Amino acid sequence: MKSQNVSEAVVRRLPRYYRHLETLANNNVERVSSSELAEQLSLTPSQVRQDFNCFGGFGQQGYGYPVKKLYEEIGLILGLAQKFKMIIAGAGNIGRALCNHEGFHNKGFEVQALFDINENLIGQKINGKPVLPIGEMGRYIKENAIDIGVIAARRTVAQSLADEMVAAGIKAIWNFVPTDINAPVPLENVQLIDSMLVLSYRVTQH
Amino acid sequence: MKSQNVSEAVVRRLPRYYRHLETLANNNVERVSSSELAEQLSLTPSQVRQDFNCFGGFGQQGYGYPVKKLYEEIGLILGLAQKFKMIIAGAGNIGRALCNHEGFHNKGFEVQALFDINENLIGQKINGKPVLPIGEMGRYIKENAIDIGVIAARRTVAQSLADEMVAAGIKAIWNFVPTDINAPVPLENVQLIDSMLVLSYRVTQH
Repeated sequence: MKSQNVSEAVVRRLPRYYRHLETLANNNVERVSSSELAEQLSLTPSQVRQDFNCFGGFGQQGYGYPVKKLYEEIGLILGLAQKFKMIIAGAGNIGRALCNHEGFHNKGFEVQALFDINENLIGQKINGKPVLPIGEMGRYIKENAIDIGVIAARRTVAQSLADEMVAAGIKAIWNFVPTDINAPVPLENVQLIDSMLVLSYRVTQH
Repeated sequence: MKSQNVSEAVVRRLPRYYRHLETLANNNVERVSSSELAEQLSLTPSQVRQDFNCFGGFGQQGYGYPVKKLYEEIGLILGLAQKFKMIIAGAGNIGRALCNHEGFHNKGFEVQALFDINENLIGQKINGKPVLPIGEMGRYIKENAIDIGVIAARRTVAQSLADEMVAAGIKAIWNFVPTDINAPVPLENVQLIDSMLVLSYRVTQH
């Protein structure tokens, strides 16, 4: 389902709805109203309804939403009907943790390989995935039609890795390096140090 | 410096200013104007000035801001004059990666110990920090005046770990578990699967 003009805030709430509905479905809850969803997620009922209206409303709201169907529809909107092939540039702490993370594989995000410059890491396997020389990354992305490139390398090489990924036809970049990257494809930043600094700000001001 | 009524968006931009000014300072740039900062960070000059006005404006803007001084002042606002003692609940992939991450220690965020329920992990050291039994976490937080508790454990125990941390006097919680936690202290969520789902949404809609 293609959606137009969906705001950043709505997009960021979709995964929360999705996760929450998964929990409800696992607990055999069959229907849920917008008021219940709102309360459970600390939103307002009208916000929930407005969010859902961006995607056609998901049917009769007077009787509540059917949990399993809503869960599946939001999953489709999030792109979870397909598999995504990922590579990870950088086989350090973060790269390894991501490669070992079971939660991604379950959702169809499949790490194919890691790439590093460190001779001691090249040739190793991490969770069964090979660590290959960084010089082979571009060719590997092309030949294996990789969808998502994860950047978990040094700050100084982050932009050049992104450029190389884009040149090789990557569809999206997931950046874990604390630097601002420019790329003409969808880009998500997980900048741990920024999150930590926001926390220290709040503790200091609290 | 205490600041009132600073919006969420401004707070989230502070770490970006801070990181960028660090890079400028390392490159021996002495002064930077709001226009230059805006261009470098993909903001508008008036946004930069408005953001800085939340904290008193940081002095003469006509001549540009002195880079090193601005960097230091924003660091103070972010709470970086002090050290923060952290513990990590959960010594799995994410907990270990955070414990091994050099970037935190450099900024004064010091992991003291990890806690886990897994007998095979208890007694190990990760980056020199002990893995202790999860049952000892509350007492350890109290006795060592721990500031920040990281939750990197299973989803089902995330809320009870948060409750225990709060009861023991923790000042802030950094949550890596994909579930919504309630706590009466500053709370930052890093929900990797949410970020991944936003990325797959964007790839699907692109």
